[in-house]
Amino acid sequence: MTEKQSIRVGILKCGNIGTSPLLELLLDELADRKDIRVRTVTTGSKMTLEDVEDAIPKMLEFSSDVLVTISPNAALPGPAKAREAFVSSGKPTIVITDAPGKRVKADLEKQGVGYIVITGDPLIGARKEFLDPTEMALFNSNVSKVLAAAGVYRIVQQEIDKVIYAIGAGQTPVLPRLVIDITVVRDNSVFINPYARAKAMAAYGMAEKVADINALACFVEKESLKYIPLVASAHEIAQAAARLADEARETEKCTDSLMRKPHAKDGRLKSKTQLMLDPTFDEGTQAN
Amino acid sequence: MTEKQSIRVGILKCGNIGTSPLLELLLDELADRKDIRVRTVTTGSKMTLEDVEDAIPKMLEFSSDVLVTISPNAALPGPAKAREAFVSSGKPTIVITDAPGKRVKADLEKQGVGYIVITGDPLIGARKEFLDPTEMALFNSNVSKVLAAAGVYRIVQQEIDKVIYAIGAGQTPVLPRLVIDITVVRDNSVFINPYARAKAMAAYGMAEKVADINALACFVEKESLKYIPLVASAHEIAQAAARLADEARETEKCTDSLMRKPHAKDGRLKSKTQLMLDPTFDEGTQAN
Amino acid sequence: MTEKQSIRVGILKCGNIGTSPLLELLLDELADRKDIRVRTVTTGSKMTLEDVEDAIPKMLEFSSDVLVTISPNAALPGPAKAREAFVSSGKPTIVITDAPGKRVKADLEKQGVGYIVITGDPLIGARKEFLDPTEMALFNSNVSKVLAAAGVYRIVQQEIDKVIYAIGAGQTPVLPRLVIDITVVRDNSVFINPYARAKAMAAYGMAEKVADINALACFVEKESLKYIPLVASAHEIAQAAARLADEARETEKCTDSLMRKPHAKDGRLKSKTQLMLDPTFDEGTQAN
Amino acid sequence: MTEKQSIRVGILKCGNIGTSPLLELLLDELADRKDIRVRTVTTGSKMTLEDVEDAIPKMLEFSSDVLVTISPNAALPGPAKAREAFVSSGKPTIVITDAPGKRVKADLEKQGVGYIVITGDPLIGARKEFLDPTEMALFNSNVSKVLAAAGVYRIVQQEIDKVIYAIGAGQTPVLPRLVIDITVVRDNSVFINPYARAKAMAAYGMAEKVADINALACFVEKESLKYIPLVASAHEIAQAAARLADEARETEKCTDSLMRKPHAKDGRLKSKTQLMLDPTFDEGTQAN
Amino acid sequence: MTEKQSIRVGILKCGNIGTSPLLELLLDELADRKDIRVRTVTTGSKMTLEDVEDAIPKMLEFSSDVLVTISPNAALPGPAKAREAFVSSGKPTIVITDAPGKRVKADLEKQGVGYIVITGDPLIGARKEFLDPTEMALFNSNVSKVLAAAGVYRIVQQEIDKVIYAIGAGQTPVLPRLVIDITVVRDNSVFINPYARAKAMAAYGMAEKVADINALACFVEKESLKYIPLVASAHEIAQAAARLADEARETEKCTDSLMRKPHAKDGRLKSKTQLMLDPTFDEGTQAN
Amino acid sequence: MTEKQSIRVGILKCGNIGTSPLLELLLDELADRKDIRVRTVTTGSKMTLEDVEDAIPKMLEFSSDVLVTISPNAALPGPAKAREAFVSSGKPTIVITDAPGKRVKADLEKQGVGYIVITGDPLIGARKEFLDPTEMALFNSNVSKVLAAAGVYRIVQQEIDKVIYAIGAGQTPVLPRLVIDITVVRDNSVFINPYARAKAMAAYGMAEKVADINALACFVEKESLKYIPLVASAHEIAQAAARLADEARETEKCTDSLMRKPHAKDGRLKSKTQLMLDPTFDEGTQAN
Repeated sequence: MTEKQSIRVGILKCGNIGTSPLLELLLDELADRKDIRVRTVTTGSKMTLEDVEDAIPKMLEFSSDVLVTISPNAALPGPAKAREAFVSSGKPTIVITDAPGKRVKADLEKQGVGYIVITGDPLIGARKEFLDPTEMALFNSNVSKVLAAAGVYRIVQQEIDKVIYAIGAGQTPVLPRLVIDITVVRDNSVFINPYARAKAMAAYGMAEKVADINALACFVEKESLKYIPLVASAHEIAQAAARLADEARETEKCTDSLMRKPHAKDGRLKSKTQLMLDPTFDEGTQAN
Repeated sequence: MTEKQSIRVGILKCGNIGTSPLLELLLDELADRKDIRVRTVTTGSKMTLEDVEDAIPKMLEFSSDVLVTISPNAALPGPAKAREAFVSSGKPTIVITDAPGKRVKADLEKQGVGYIVITGDPLIGARKEFLDPTEMALFNSNVSKVLAAAGVYRIVQQEIDKVIYAIGAGQTPVLPRLVIDITVVRDNSVFINPYARAKAMAAYGMAEKVADINALACFVEKESLKYIPLVASAHEIAQAAARLADEARETEKCTDSLMRKPHAKDGRLKSKTQLMLDPTFDEGTQAN
Repeated sequence: MTEKQSIRVGILKCGNIGTSPLLELLLDELADRKDIRVRTVTTGSKMTLEDVEDAIPKMLEFSSDVLVTISPNAALPGPAKAREAFVSSGKPTIVITDAPGKRVKADLEKQGVGYIVITGDPLIGARKEFLDPTEMALFNSNVSKVLAAAGVYRIVQQEIDKVIYAIGAGQTPVLPRLVIDITVVRDNSVFINPYARAKAMAAYGMAEKVADINALACFVEKESLKYIPLVASAHEIAQAAARLADEARETEKCTDSLMRKPHAKDGRLKSKTQLMLDPTFDEGTQAN
Repeated sequence: MTEKQSIRVGILKCGNIGTSPLLELLLDELADRKDIRVRTVTTGSKMTLEDVEDAIPKMLEFSSDVLVTISPNAALPGPAKAREAFVSSGKPTIVITDAPGKRVKADLEKQGVGYIVITGDPLIGARKEFLDPTEMALFNSNVSKVLAAAGVYRIVQQEIDKVIYAIGAGQTPVLPRLVIDITVVRDNSVFINPYARAKAMAAYGMAEKVADINALACFVEKESLKYIPLVASAHEIAQAAARLADEARETEKCTDSLMRKPHAKDGRLKSKTQLMLDPTFDEGTQAN
Repeated sequence: MTEKQSIRVGILKCGNIGTSPLLELLLDELADRKDIRVRTVTTGSKMTLEDVEDAIPKMLEFSSDVLVTISPNAALPGPAKAREAFVSSGKPTIVITDAPGKRVKADLEKQGVGYIVITGDPLIGARKEFLDPTEMALFNSNVSKVLAAAGVYRIVQQEIDKVIYAIGAGQTPVLPRLVIDITVVRDNSVFINPYARAKAMAAYGMAEKVADINALACFVEKESLKYIPLVASAHEIAQAAARLADEARETEKCTDSLMRKPHAKDGRLKSKTQLMLDPTFDEGTQAN
Repeated sequence: MTEKQSIRVGILKCGNIGTSPLLELLLDELADRKDIRVRTVTTGSKMTLEDVEDAIPKMLEFSSDVLVTISPNAALPGPAKAREAFVSSGKPTIVITDAPGKRVKADLEKQGVGYIVITGDPLIGARKEFLDPTEMALFNSNVSKVLAAAGVYRIVQQEIDKVIYAIGAGQTPVLPRLVIDITVVRDNSVFINPYARAKAMAAYGMAEKVADINALACFVEKESLKYIPLVASAHEIAQAAARLADEARETEKCTDSLMRKPHAKDGRLKSKTQLMLDPTFDEGTQAN
């Protein structure tokens, strides 16, 4: 495969969820993958219809082979507009969103887009008495740690990879239809130690609780004396969840059984556990 | 000011450093800022000349009022190309990069671009035996926590805000020329408690050490038995630094003196310490 | 008041929730309270109708002035039988139970019993592959720490104390009608430091999540390979919640502002913050 | 065996030690044991002669097959009275108590009662400037964690189980005569990892030290400025001991070798280590 | 005072306790004290009569104005010989030792030597299956942290300083007669926060327990299967005590009230709390 | 070998580095080694030429078979004088020093002395606003933990042992020429678990960073408002490094694979991993 034949992956981010900031990096962590080229366009933290419409054309001009939109609540007009445009372009389209996105699952299926709903990618505590750029970044750091350690990022990456592999092989890709809740985390875990898995699942469950409390704080409670303690407590849970996510990995380190699944240059996944050994192709690894 | 008059901020990310993933979000953490519109284009983890040249036109088409490039090592051909293109566009241009970027400071000044070099935004342990998408994400999470808690993200955001304010006021912006080392972290800290500040500085110092060890592991050592322990130890330091960054904030929480500096809707910074109170404009806050 | 005139408090525990084991001790932590005598009868971990019917007469023979039943899920036949018997005895009766008890609130009100539903007193992971006496005790330890530090035990104790005070004053007691959720924890907190309160609330919210996951594991999932990871993750959350509960108190210790509210010998509550000072009666403390 | 033939276990708690609150639950952690029925009567935190005499008849009316008293300092009149009454009833009687109980060992043997003295079940810091219901509960939580993790609860439960099994088999039970000090904890540990055992022993040793310091604070020092720091330091040790107890279990989790010994429905103990496997009867497990 | 007039302090270390390794450094932490010269002679870890007799002459040749011996168990022949020789030299002599040294208090007083017995400077777990150079060093690190944070090193240093000051002032020094137990730690604490003090006291109490367990393991138990778990548990307590000692300081940092008492160049102590301010002489500080 | 034939090891400490306080103890941790006698002379924290010249004769009078000097910065006049005197004595001489000592490596080789330069034995934060005896001791405790856990103490001890063995065998010893940097720590690690090793290396790397920051604070910054935060942050890193050093050992404990290498009575090293087993001579262990 020459570089000319790279699959082009286009990602439109509007607004932000915990899976957004690192999404394109997950596909090519060593920056040496020969089979893809990734382009991302974002509208920053805003996700209004106006913002999204401004960004869509640029995204489309990149002539991607597969298109991904990622945003909070896929039911909102901005994200909805983006996926309509992408579907219209005729390219395979994947929607990634958080728990409220579950409500539009039927619509998404009707539109023929793939989707990944991440129930443990929680709403931030978006109250002006609490959230400043630093707090926002720390929350993202904590959520990111949970989603990475719990294997959610890996699930997302592998779903996109599958589509890439199919396109690379000249096949019609099967798009994901996936709601990642705690049972999906459980069933897709690559931890060897069952307690490590339990800790990672616990961290993910806690992230789901963060979402519940922040929704109460942001959409129900109206007085600052009522909602400030709630957003503050939700972010405390996020921090505790991040610590537990670290613990999951530490537990696995103790027996040198931490699974790593780096991309080979041709885009396939290798895997390994013992730290000092080389990663190898799993039997049956799908080539591109 | 009507929304029509928003300042447009364009950000090109090529490759990734710890300041990249959240950069545009730092400018508008509550997604309600009326004075700016932000558009980002990225080339994913790759930063070759070819990738960057592919992305530059899209970035320019967004007609930004200020342009930012962020990448590892600003001396490389890709990032260099981007900033040449941006300077040629006549728009104020700011380069954000990591420690190796110090080497091109003179060039940057000659070009008339602003720059922010972040010595504690460390090189990742990019060795295929170690780095997979999950490890990459966890490293970013740890680095992000350090940079946020140490105030580095706030410094970067305030420098870009200053340029935005100047453009909004019809003035010629003064572009930043800043190398953020541990003494800059010290001198720009908003911690009230001196031990909290010391912990944040310590975390930042540790991040600098991560950079040193990873550079040794990625560019000097050639055998995997030599470099794997080094990248693994560097990432352990990153994790320990993240914990210390958390500790800095926890120390400040004890006296309810944690400073928060959210953006008002008009883009100005408010600030507060006591959690249950409202943020207020600092005296002399620059309006837009 | 002579000791002869002590108010007699009778407590029937059938089955166990996290509030059960220490309940009577909360009323008289120094064992020197002159205004009450407490007697408890329990049926151990079992709560069948047969067990409860066996225990009720003994409880009634103690001639209590106020009767308390505490059990999981107050809707079950055993606990239901106990409160019917107590109501029939004509004595003021209070039901304490966990989240599923919310479903019988209307019934409880119709019966004229007081109730306290504790949503964050979670179902244990009662699966034979996981729960042994040691794990059971550790779970109770963790839950107990959360409920104590979050102020839930204090709320329960104060509600019972209010009834005791009323009886002691020859008044008809007003019985509690209280669902203790995270907002009640928030509104009844005695933490001075708002971050300490947020941490305690967070711990409580996590305990609610424990309940959700254990309900899924105990009542929905049927295969051990499915439910073991769930109960294990729920208990990990309980442990993390206990740590956060400790953190809440530690935060308050830092400014020597930890509130203590011991009972005086006459049953009234005193209170204090600075460790080295004596507790004093709050202004307006209700005497007995 | 039909349920009619259940062995009836009667427990009288007067006053409280760390082993008291969960004692009956340890015997039937899944609430599904067919071979026993448990009834408990308590006098709350008080343990005066008058309180105990009031409770004894109710306990006896439950017609237990084996009787257990648990209290601090078995030498005091209240507990002494209870065991006299139980011995007079002709039923096998077991006394469970804390370190001061060692002094009456000879008397207990003369009376023919079994006894378990737990040297690491420490006196609480019962000083009114320090102890309120919340602090009492937290102390119990910490002590409970230590006793559970160190295997002390299991030893106690197995000793009672042995008596139950003997009665069920129509044999005369051999009553325990056991002082559980750190060497007994060592010799009865079920940890596989020797460092896990060492940590659990360490936690237990720390609990013994808590007892020493609280005895000094409660019985020797007379001025609040002298005894407050002592009770506060003792409770700090209890908290540190609980953390170390957690660590012991965490260490064992790392190799998935944490021993679990749940009761089967017929009352026998099963055991297991690997989390995902079923518990099995140990070879030679005594049936009932 | 010219340097010629420096007071000469001679220290003989035979064998090692936790106070030994840093003893002379405590007197001159900044190496700029003009009023003293310190010379130390040690016999390494050995403390036989032969070793001590070999070292005594060298110590005496340094013509010290005050002589200090420090060793485990001052009752042993080696240490006894050293203090006899020092007393014979006519110089003021101070003996520093651990708990077993209490037994020779009367002798020490008769000899006219000063003494400091440190009950929380614990015997090491000196069993060949456990102790290697690394474990020895880690144990010393942990003990050292406890003794430093609990203020024991400061008490020792101040007692020696008092003698130095007296000699410098031409007075006959009053030698210390001090058994440092937990109540002495309490009464000499310089923590502002009472919880910080309680934590430091707790750490010290734990160190006393380490001594008890190691004495059992080293002098009573004879089989390795019996004593290895004991020494291992004792060292676990030492590690936990060191963490608690750190916590004590961290608690104090939260309000920036950590007391520091550096030596001025003239040997007097200054003191300070707020980190960013200069230390000052306490009112009434004794000059030399 | 009779005791008469013991090899005599003489150590002169002038000034202090983290390897100094425990150095002689590392050679004979159980105080039962028959093949050596150790004598140490120190000048306390001072290391002026005058102090060292005062101490040298006493050191030489001990008629040592091998001489060791240990001090900060071996380039300074005091340490330089000591090693000249030792070389002149004709005895094998080893210099142990910290990072600045690297500058005199060539000189040391010319003099024929052996040397061990420890780059991670960091300069203390010697500023009078920060350093008091307690802070000094805590810093030493933290550094000591890092150097012990990272294996640096063991490397130093083994180098000296090699010289002792050679002398004992009547051979001319080969003196060490060793700069212990992070790669030497890596290559000499005895950790079985590669993550444990990585943590230990990380701790060591952090200690190197402590040195850098303290050098900036002590030798470059002149204003207290500039240098206090730096020394405070350096000591925070030292504390974090000590925690990571503990973590390295804890990781290894999880699989009961912690290596111990005690000295046998004849001075040879034994080794073991499983805690409950006896240490044995490694195959090929060099006898004396």
